Amino acid sequence: MDLAITNVLAITMGDDRLGILEDATIGIDGGRIAAVGPSDAVDAGAERTIDGDGRVAMPGLVNVHAHTDLTLLRGGAQDVPEIEWMNRALGPLSAAMEPADRVAGARLGVLEALRSGVTTVGEYAANVERLVGEAHEPMGARVVAAETINAVDGPTDDLGPDEPYPFDEEQGWSALERNEDLFDACADRERVSALYGPQALDMVPRELLEELRERAETRDRGIHMHVAQGEREQRQIEARYGAGETTVSVLEELGLVSDRVLAAHLHGATTEERARLADAGVRMAANPSSIAAIDGITPPIVEYREHGGVAGIGTDQAPGPGGHDFLRELRTTALLAKTKRTDPTAFPAWEALRVATIEGARALGIEDRVGSLEEGKRADIVLLDLEHPSTAPTVTEPLHTAIPNVVYGANGGVVDTVLVEGESVLEGGDLQTADEGAILERANDRATDLFDRAGDAWRDADSALVGAVEDGWL
Amino acid sequence: MDLAITNVLAITMGDDRLGILEDATIGIDGGRIAAVGPSDAVDAGAERTIDGDGRVAMPGLVNVHAHTDLTLLRGGAQDVPEIEWMNRALGPLSAAMEPADRVAGARLGVLEALRSGVTTVGEYAANVERLVGEAHEPMGARVVAAETINAVDGPTDDLGPDEPYPFDEEQGWSALERNEDLFDACADRERVSALYGPQALDMVPRELLEELRERAETRDRGIHMHVAQGEREQRQIEARYGAGETTVSVLEELGLVSDRVLAAHLHGATTEERARLADAGVRMAANPSSIAAIDGITPPIVEYREHGGVAGIGTDQAPGPGGHDFLRELRTTALLAKTKRTDPTAFPAWEALRVATIEGARALGIEDRVGSLEEGKRADIVLLDLEHPSTAPTVTEPLHTAIPNVVYGANGGVVDTVLVEGESVLEGGDLQTADEGAILERANDRATDLFDRAGDAWRDADSALVGAVEDGWL
Repeated sequence: MDLAITNVLAITMGDDRLGILEDATIGIDGGRIAAVGPSDAVDAGAERTIDGDGRVAMPGLVNVHAHTDLTLLRGGAQDVPEIEWMNRALGPLSAAMEPADRVAGARLGVLEALRSGVTTVGEYAANVERLVGEAHEPMGARVVAAETINAVDGPTDDLGPDEPYPFDEEQGWSALERNEDLFDACADRERVSALYGPQALDMVPRELLEELRERAETRDRGIHMHVAQGEREQRQIEARYGAGETTVSVLEELGLVSDRVLAAHLHGATTEERARLADAGVRMAANPSSIAAIDGITPPIVEYREHGGVAGIGTDQAPGPGGHDFLRELRTTALLAKTKRTDPTAFPAWEALRVATIEGARALGIEDRVGSLEEGKRADIVLLDLEHPSTAPTVTEPLHTAIPNVVYGANGGVVDTVLVEGESVLEGGDLQTADEGAILERANDRATDLFDRAGDAWRDADSALVGAVEDGWL
Repeated sequence: MDLAITNVLAITMGDDRLGILEDATIGIDGGRIAAVGPSDAVDAGAERTIDGDGRVAMPGLVNVHAHTDLTLLRGGAQDVPEIEWMNRALGPLSAAMEPADRVAGARLGVLEALRSGVTTVGEYAANVERLVGEAHEPMGARVVAAETINAVDGPTDDLGPDEPYPFDEEQGWSALERNEDLFDACADRERVSALYGPQALDMVPRELLEELRERAETRDRGIHMHVAQGEREQRQIEARYGAGETTVSVLEELGLVSDRVLAAHLHGATTEERARLADAGVRMAANPSSIAAIDGITPPIVEYREHGGVAGIGTDQAPGPGGHDFLRELRTTALLAKTKRTDPTAFPAWEALRVATIEGARALGIEDRVGSLEEGKRADIVLLDLEHPSTAPTVTEPLHTAIPNVVYGANGGVVDTVLVEGESVLEGGDLQTADEGAILERANDRATDLFDRAGDAWRDADSALVGAVEDGWL
């Protein structure tokens, strides 16, 4: 064996529970999990050993939905009315992004994600292959990438809400071809896989969606799409497809409601629609901090799971919710769920840990490879420090306090070791795969230039933040 | 001057705004702030200099309401129905606590608080002087301590909800005398001050409250009290004081609605009652994570401030919300406020920073000493790292991204330096005043014994967590 993690409290996700094993050993060979079991039953003869005493070992966390490139714009758009966020606060900044800015942002976002225990990122971006090749892959993260397919031609803020966005068909179809290239490029890369990425029903022409659905079926591929994001989208759907139609009703008609689809958000769908989506096997990507920060809404992840649907959690983008700290996102998901339902039992710690791992892997369609500590699976494993100011004390009787303490207590500082395919990406809290200082410096330099370039446009868009700056608040 | 912090982005809280100063120098002498201003205008000739480049300097954060001793029970009570939390989950554990357990818990809790940028803790506990003397004071924290006065005689879980709790008068009056001793003991301690701590209206006899109110007026002292915690309390009030009475109506009659009072929680009061409390100058301690975790409720801090009331934020206790990470609490407060009102502009980052500092100081009645970076105030200052995976990038034009990024992005790892009265409590991320490893080890050892001692009682109380353990979830 290449590596053994010994004497560790393991949360394996076995038996459809947490699969808690005290004093466990995990053996890793050739990037896969070769053995998991009680230390006295597993041969720990390995080239290298990590003593897991005082730590918990878990499957690497799975962030199912993130636009990491936008991490470069952290701080540029939040605390504004929902209607202003995209077009008047974030828009002028993202319009000024150059390809190198997107890479710098993605490297910062992936760094933050890895530091919070994430091993798989469900990335969603335009020209995503460059991000994968310059951020996720060299930094050691597993990535399930979707190429954004968006045919909306230019800014839409001068349109009335009931005027359908004009499409640039060519823009849409060429994005679909980039998406095809992405599939080709990912074919033999161990840590990279691909999904189709139609942005949203209101942003892609019908014919393109029909073609995409047919290709997905023929080639057995998945689709990652924003679905039912709220009133703005709903009005576009009625304007384009007719009164009484909704995103879900049109997607049903298009054959896009199936177990191929990972649907982000869903807060704009009705309860009945969500039940139908769950029945059809559509998987949900819930982004609680993002939707809370940008829309003031708690996404319906608990409800979707009650419908029997599979759901994972994502961090979406840094501007708004603040970043890609996934441990923090678990706690936020739980507290928002509890207050939404006035029920402190909603989304308990153990549910959070399953959704963060095996359920997230199911949402991304990679549960055969990752999401649990089982023999034969890829060795994507995190070790969290339980002897830390945010997680101590740890007892094992009469309950394992580590379970709630990882979800409610832990801050990012507990993430000690992150393995992807058995490779140390983080060890002893230090990033092994890139120069962290250089990532931060590059991000600062590029952001300084970008905010300077975009500053006038940002001010001219006159979001509520511009007044806040003038008033000495920002 | 003893110390100068140079080249720093300072958030001073001046001018009833944030008082943002770029490239500032802060001079400290004799434990007080001697100068704050642009680096080229402040003489930085000091015995020691901290280069603040790449950091933000803020007033130390003020956690207005915490029971840090219960940090030893972290993980023991959460994800249960509200009705079970106190008596069937936490109760059997807290009943088994020995004085040394409370000290070990408080030292762990204060460690976590300091590591998140807190310089002042509004501590609330029985025999609080021992905690202050063995945790807060030696560890360097400022503390405003309230001695718990509670006359309820033994467990109440076998009583019907409309049977008034039986009082042990002697228990109540002797706690009041301990509270008097606390005032005496704090008289000449620079970092320690005291408040009366009547637990709650349903847990203290009327005569004792009348005496306490009179002493508070005569001796010009403040009162820290839990007020309007929900239905359980309301039924007790009606049982004891008569149908139609509420906590607020009885407190008004008792003369306990005044600017001497810091009231924790208030979610059980009506809108009209809260408006009356705010008008009377009652200050609010909001504990969003705790009340979300335990009750599934978002406390009305935004509403209370709209009534014109002064409010601070507290972390309450670790079991439930998970701990005393105060930076995280700011983000949680904001996201819960936004979803409660379906309004992404609720509780913006700048409001969070004021509430965390100067408003928190007002809530505890120490705004003459701390809460802003102003000449003459005590040098309670934190330096946060802006070149960190959770806060980068930092730009100053067209807005200061540091403001939202400290609230929404930052995790505890950004807290670099914490000064209290000009003394380095944390520096370069290292605790200067105690052996962190020893605090963690002690907490683990004492918790292991305690949970072992209390295990049978915890199981016998049969909260929902007992079943979760049996089912492999915990």
